[in-house]
Amino acid sequence: MTALPEGFLAAVARDFPADFLSVDPSDLATFGRDWTKVHEPRPAAVALPRSTDEVSRLLKLCTAFQVPIVPSGGRTGLAAGAVAAQGEVVVSLSRMRRMNSVDVLGGTVRVQAGAVTEEVHRHVGEHGLTWPVDFASKGSSQVGGNIATNAGGVKVIRYGLTRQWVLGLEVVLASGEVLELGGALEKNNTGIDLRQLFIGSEGTLGIITEATLKLTRLPGKLDVLLFAVPNLAGVLALFKEARTGPFVITAYEFFTEKCMARVRRHRSVREPLAAPSEYYVLLEVERAEPEALEAWIGSLFERGVVTDGTLAQHAGEAAAIWALREGISESLSATGMPHKNDIALPIQELEGFCAELESVFDARYPGWEIALFGHIGDGNLHVNVMKPDAMEKAAFLARTHEADHTMFELVRKYRGSISAEHGIGLLKKDYLGYSRSGTEIEIMRAIKRVLDPLGIMNPGKVF
Amino acid sequence: MTALPEGFLAAVARDFPADFLSVDPSDLATFGRDWTKVHEPRPAAVALPRSTDEVSRLLKLCTAFQVPIVPSGGRTGLAAGAVAAQGEVVVSLSRMRRMNSVDVLGGTVRVQAGAVTEEVHRHVGEHGLTWPVDFASKGSSQVGGNIATNAGGVKVIRYGLTRQWVLGLEVVLASGEVLELGGALEKNNTGIDLRQLFIGSEGTLGIITEATLKLTRLPGKLDVLLFAVPNLAGVLALFKEARTGPFVITAYEFFTEKCMARVRRHRSVREPLAAPSEYYVLLEVERAEPEALEAWIGSLFERGVVTDGTLAQHAGEAAAIWALREGISESLSATGMPHKNDIALPIQELEGFCAELESVFDARYPGWEIALFGHIGDGNLHVNVMKPDAMEKAAFLARTHEADHTMFELVRKYRGSISAEHGIGLLKKDYLGYSRSGTEIEIMRAIKRVLDPLGIMNPGKVF
Repeated sequence: MTALPEGFLAAVARDFPADFLSVDPSDLATFGRDWTKVHEPRPAAVALPRSTDEVSRLLKLCTAFQVPIVPSGGRTGLAAGAVAAQGEVVVSLSRMRRMNSVDVLGGTVRVQAGAVTEEVHRHVGEHGLTWPVDFASKGSSQVGGNIATNAGGVKVIRYGLTRQWVLGLEVVLASGEVLELGGALEKNNTGIDLRQLFIGSEGTLGIITEATLKLTRLPGKLDVLLFAVPNLAGVLALFKEARTGPFVITAYEFFTEKCMARVRRHRSVREPLAAPSEYYVLLEVERAEPEALEAWIGSLFERGVVTDGTLAQHAGEAAAIWALREGISESLSATGMPHKNDIALPIQELEGFCAELESVFDARYPGWEIALFGHIGDGNLHVNVMKPDAMEKAAFLARTHEADHTMFELVRKYRGSISAEHGIGLLKKDYLGYSRSGTEIEIMRAIKRVLDPLGIMNPGKVF
Repeated sequence: MTALPEGFLAAVARDFPADFLSVDPSDLATFGRDWTKVHEPRPAAVALPRSTDEVSRLLKLCTAFQVPIVPSGGRTGLAAGAVAAQGEVVVSLSRMRRMNSVDVLGGTVRVQAGAVTEEVHRHVGEHGLTWPVDFASKGSSQVGGNIATNAGGVKVIRYGLTRQWVLGLEVVLASGEVLELGGALEKNNTGIDLRQLFIGSEGTLGIITEATLKLTRLPGKLDVLLFAVPNLAGVLALFKEARTGPFVITAYEFFTEKCMARVRRHRSVREPLAAPSEYYVLLEVERAEPEALEAWIGSLFERGVVTDGTLAQHAGEAAAIWALREGISESLSATGMPHKNDIALPIQELEGFCAELESVFDARYPGWEIALFGHIGDGNLHVNVMKPDAMEKAAFLARTHEADHTMFELVRKYRGSISAEHGIGLLKKDYLGYSRSGTEIEIMRAIKRVLDPLGIMNPGKVF
């Protein structure tokens, strides 16, 4: 671990409040990592600015003394993008959570980047509006982190990724210069849209300090359905039906009986269907007329598109169905040791990909259980390979590296992405070449040199 | 006008089909300009490739001989972004209009960049799908041009800009290298999203040769309404009502009586309302229940939100209302000489901006009629200053340059954009600094140097 330069520490002590920089070991341990547990956190210090001006002055100092920075939001990332393992200064935005009053007419709100996702939902919800960026970690994830990772979630099929819900960004560059990109404008065709560079850049180009968010109306009544289908072809056939159904799809999720069995082992489950099925689909829809929805469901049964199904009759039943889907990650970890991947495929290629994945894994890694689930309506699969009980943990970990190459070869073959929504961070960096060409990676590096010539912004992440 | 290098011409003659390069004067005149008429077209030649490979080989030659390029789509632009006035080679994609079969399951289609917008609509419409990029010039605009200008239009309030409807791009760089960015994937968080650089770059970074488009379902029944309101405050008050109305807004357009009077002078108009009104709102909505819509309209009258209004009873009436709005541009040009601007403001600032614009113009430019209309639901105003009849054309043109600075000062003051949807091209280049900071412009230039080190891609445009 590198010590911070004396001159840097003296300047911070002179120019910032006493509680600006922490070297408290528990702060270093807390702020040095995200939800991944692969890397040991080793930041040199944690900076806790209260304003964009403080961020700007800090970054000027960091540039002067070549001190590396890790921008830090709610640290709920799953790709180690916010891990500080090399003596960096973590810049946490957690004190910058101001939310301006909601512009109800324009449907926008300006917030500081440290505002917590769920607090934004509450703040704008009072006006019948929502910022439709929604996922399990919304209670601690922050707006800046959501934007820096272009966060996804269960509502992408309805609302798109975070990128679509950002109108303006205030960004501090490594030099300390503050950029105001866009504003409360839906339309602004004035040259290269630099906002887009920072959205999804995982903190490698600058620190997002404020954002003007685009809002939309809260949805009306939602209906939640669970269906049983015999195989992946059935999942996709039902998806084709749902795309022309008498409603607006707000979620189309799937999981396998292998996932369901793990949820049963971990939790008490009230069985939603008469019998287990190899594949399940959770469908959530908006604006369905009751009779039209019933008729649509009836037609699915008549034509054998589904083998079983249920429509939640009240909020409690809807929540119980969602709990099955949302309990999978936790149940896999509680009942075994999953090795996780988050990939995307063109929807048309999902069946071919999954069949080949299964056959390759059967041949090369016999006895490995693969638990598949995910946002199938977006082509997004969460592939969880479970450690065989008889295999030593170390041996399993050694083999997952090889297995990832095997799977990513298939992802490339089927023109997919090695990271649908989690990002690259440190965890997927070695595999970036499966989804991006050498020229693309060179261009990314050159763009980084334009914005961060000394390479102090989240060094070593992504590329 | 610069002659093309001998070696370049010899290589083209040797390596490409005989009809690849045209120097026919009528081709030069046609392909050298867009819908703007300010610059005299003077390209050195027009290249008409049939494949990405031909584009790539041409650009390699252009790099070797430092020949400047103007990428060319349907040439319907309004900012002179596709004008070739300096001896450039125009690269027209008009022979590259292949459309692959529609992926109905995934809701995507792959097309070459020369495909005409309206032909894409027809192609995917057979499957109940649409690519919701829609505007008056759709009969000749091309997919590549739409993407390179991030085109807007009348449905942005419902569907967003073109940027939201592009999944994958094939782009040829100045070096001739072909990049495949993204693909048929909704989610792909693997580092900096380079697609976003090319969307809206107006041909300054590379040539878009193919695209995978995201499709959506064709809308259901649409209702079209025309309302009279006394002033701009009334336009915005009605907008606030509409945002919580029992429907989905698909268009929210406004125009003033000054525009309407010009339409009346130019065309035979069946008056839609009992009496003229200072301001009109065209509202188009989807998924309205007839009774709920009637009740909503009734409540507007009762509460005095509108002074008059009509709901189209059949497709003919709906088309007649739309014809009023869509006839404005043509009518302004037919009855006088408009100087056009396309600006955006935060919706909250529209009233203050318009009041100040009017008072400043009254004081500085007495007698100038300002015809205002536009996509007000997106904050997008088309400001048309009409030449006073008594003023000489030359004197008017000389003063509009000064007047643009006056208006753009106000745009900056109210945190707006000098170009909502038309782009910068050549026409707005001198004013870019009103919407983008010096640092932003430097960053744009540096990014251009990364992708186009010799500066041969659409030189002199945007920045």
